[in-house]
Amino acid sequence: MSLPLAGVTIVDFSRILSGPYATMILADLGAVVIKVERPGRGDGARALPPLKDGKSGFFAAINRGKRSIALDLEAEADRSLLDRLLDRADVLVENFRPGVMARHGLDWEALRPRLPRLIYASVSGYGQTGPDAKRPAYDAVVQARGGLMGLTGTADAPARAGSSVGDLAGGMFLVQGILAALYDREKTGRGRRVDIGLLDAQLALMEQAVPQTALGPAPQASGTRHPALAPCEAVAASDGPFMLAAGTDAQFERLCLALQLPLAEDPRFADNAARLAHVRLLKRLIEAATLEHPRSHWLSRLTAAGVPCAPIQSMEQVMKDPQLLSRNMIVDVLDRYGRASFKAAGNPIKMSEMEDRPARPAAPELDGNRADILRWLGAD
Amino acid sequence: MSLPLAGVTIVDFSRILSGPYATMILADLGAVVIKVERPGRGDGARALPPLKDGKSGFFAAINRGKRSIALDLEAEADRSLLDRLLDRADVLVENFRPGVMARHGLDWEALRPRLPRLIYASVSGYGQTGPDAKRPAYDAVVQARGGLMGLTGTADAPARAGSSVGDLAGGMFLVQGILAALYDREKTGRGRRVDIGLLDAQLALMEQAVPQTALGPAPQASGTRHPALAPCEAVAASDGPFMLAAGTDAQFERLCLALQLPLAEDPRFADNAARLAHVRLLKRLIEAATLEHPRSHWLSRLTAAGVPCAPIQSMEQVMKDPQLLSRNMIVDVLDRYGRASFKAAGNPIKMSEMEDRPARPAAPELDGNRADILRWLGAD
Repeated sequence: MSLPLAGVTIVDFSRILSGPYATMILADLGAVVIKVERPGRGDGARALPPLKDGKSGFFAAINRGKRSIALDLEAEADRSLLDRLLDRADVLVENFRPGVMARHGLDWEALRPRLPRLIYASVSGYGQTGPDAKRPAYDAVVQARGGLMGLTGTADAPARAGSSVGDLAGGMFLVQGILAALYDREKTGRGRRVDIGLLDAQLALMEQAVPQTALGPAPQASGTRHPALAPCEAVAASDGPFMLAAGTDAQFERLCLALQLPLAEDPRFADNAARLAHVRLLKRLIEAATLEHPRSHWLSRLTAAGVPCAPIQSMEQVMKDPQLLSRNMIVDVLDRYGRASFKAAGNPIKMSEMEDRPARPAAPELDGNRADILRWLGAD
Repeated sequence: MSLPLAGVTIVDFSRILSGPYATMILADLGAVVIKVERPGRGDGARALPPLKDGKSGFFAAINRGKRSIALDLEAEADRSLLDRLLDRADVLVENFRPGVMARHGLDWEALRPRLPRLIYASVSGYGQTGPDAKRPAYDAVVQARGGLMGLTGTADAPARAGSSVGDLAGGMFLVQGILAALYDREKTGRGRRVDIGLLDAQLALMEQAVPQTALGPAPQASGTRHPALAPCEAVAASDGPFMLAAGTDAQFERLCLALQLPLAEDPRFADNAARLAHVRLLKRLIEAATLEHPRSHWLSRLTAAGVPCAPIQSMEQVMKDPQLLSRNMIVDVLDRYGRASFKAAGNPIKMSEMEDRPARPAAPELDGNRADILRWLGAD
């Protein structure tokens, strides 16, 4: 049993979500992550809800198992400590606006001559280049600008995707860039600079919308309906909606059998393209049948028939979902005394010979690992 | 200039979206991806809209630059060809339902003794283990079951996030697992099995909702409003809504100045927690000001003041966004004759010394690279 990133050290200047989410994944894979925080308040996520006994459950979830040292980058002693930390680092992560690291002499150009093996990884709202590079951004802003919001909800009421997918996608692409650069460094001995923009990352999620818009007509927000598969949307049972997705002809035939609807031979529904062309009629026909019984009836019947379907679960239901529990996807985060204190999403990257424990080590107190880090640097 | 994954060979059995999205990213980073398709129809995505001259723009976007060989896994000659392909492979990718690869003797347990260095990477709806492992699933089904749909849109009208974020997150975690395993193999000489479930991946995006639900109250769908930052939502100008996100106290002060609203000293809005507690009142006060002028007025004024904001762009607007264009995020995909034929999202992982061309090589014809692949195997 060994973690794939054992031996990798990351010096992490990032705050709030996109960078910390990336280093959370890297820590789950075995990297040592040292958060460099500003003295006094540290990472702003330490104050974000939900709070319990003054501690943020959000911060705990995203920063589990990391170390923290508070450094005043203007103070000479702290600065020389940072230099020695960087000498030991494989990867530097930061998510400031472009220009901030340079003000401290910590930009890639400044560090590169001394640290040619360092992988320098940045994520910012708009990336390091382009007319808007220096503007601040948040997940919600890039969801709006990048097109996701306009395609979510309805045409009259655009909606934010119910999680910070722009931030998270930025973090995930950062992880991918870092890991590709680490692999490459094994071959070349040289580090690379990785540059992720949240707006770019959000656009990279528009897998169907970009080619569709180029050829026209541009896609529209359509509630629960999928733009390119039919039937694939929420349908009403007698006690509320459930999600149905019969994406192949074989699944559609099985659906028709289970609903006792003689539609599989109808040329209007002969293949996905035909079903898409008659998608509103198709939904009304399906609901004519599904409204006869409650959701539980249809979910078990369609599951038995091999038709993909699911309840639209509340988060309370999600937290008790047997499949997610069996996959260790709801984990405890310990507090500094080793007590289960918060819940967090587990590590979705399951790998052979990699331990996947049901509890994760605590997130660090601000500056909580200074003594250990000094000892590790041989400076105590 | 060199690509970080130069020299990595991937044999890719995956179809439609989650697996192919992963191998698209790996191909953009320099890996050689050989699609193994079923004879006749190949990857089902070849038929998905948008279509132009019978070719799928969706397929072209996701499969740009890959190779294709059609293999009948029941035919002896094709099977021995596949064995020789696997001898050369660093990574195998597949996204069948668990059990399908085993029926062909191609499961990890079967291949591992002969190919100990092979990284065997699977993504399926529910992962390789647990009570629902063998059930089929689609992105829309895991969005519903995993809680994202219930938090998107409104409580009365849940909505699908406007892109297949469950599939895409699954693909991105697969990339991360593969890259971590490749790095690890440089140290140990051994491959690993990577196991990703779309439902797990979707849950891993609920970064705030999991700790929030555990401590209560559970979050609710709230349109464009962010659950933990205020003000962070769409507000109405005289000609329609735009997105506003003043996530820090300093940004909120600058917002109040720009709107000429004396709220920054008001204890009800003194910090993010207070603003969240009075978020509806705060929105009405902000809109009292913003309704006076059109969106363009506020976007330029707030941008000048350093307040994060953005238009809610349609996909047509997104495709012309100067920042995205300057970052090469809308690329051409060539056809087999080298003509710009489709548009796709570019590679969001920008890296030093890595070429980022504005046009991408064509997606392969079904079985279009058989002769080259045979030659490469020394079998022609």
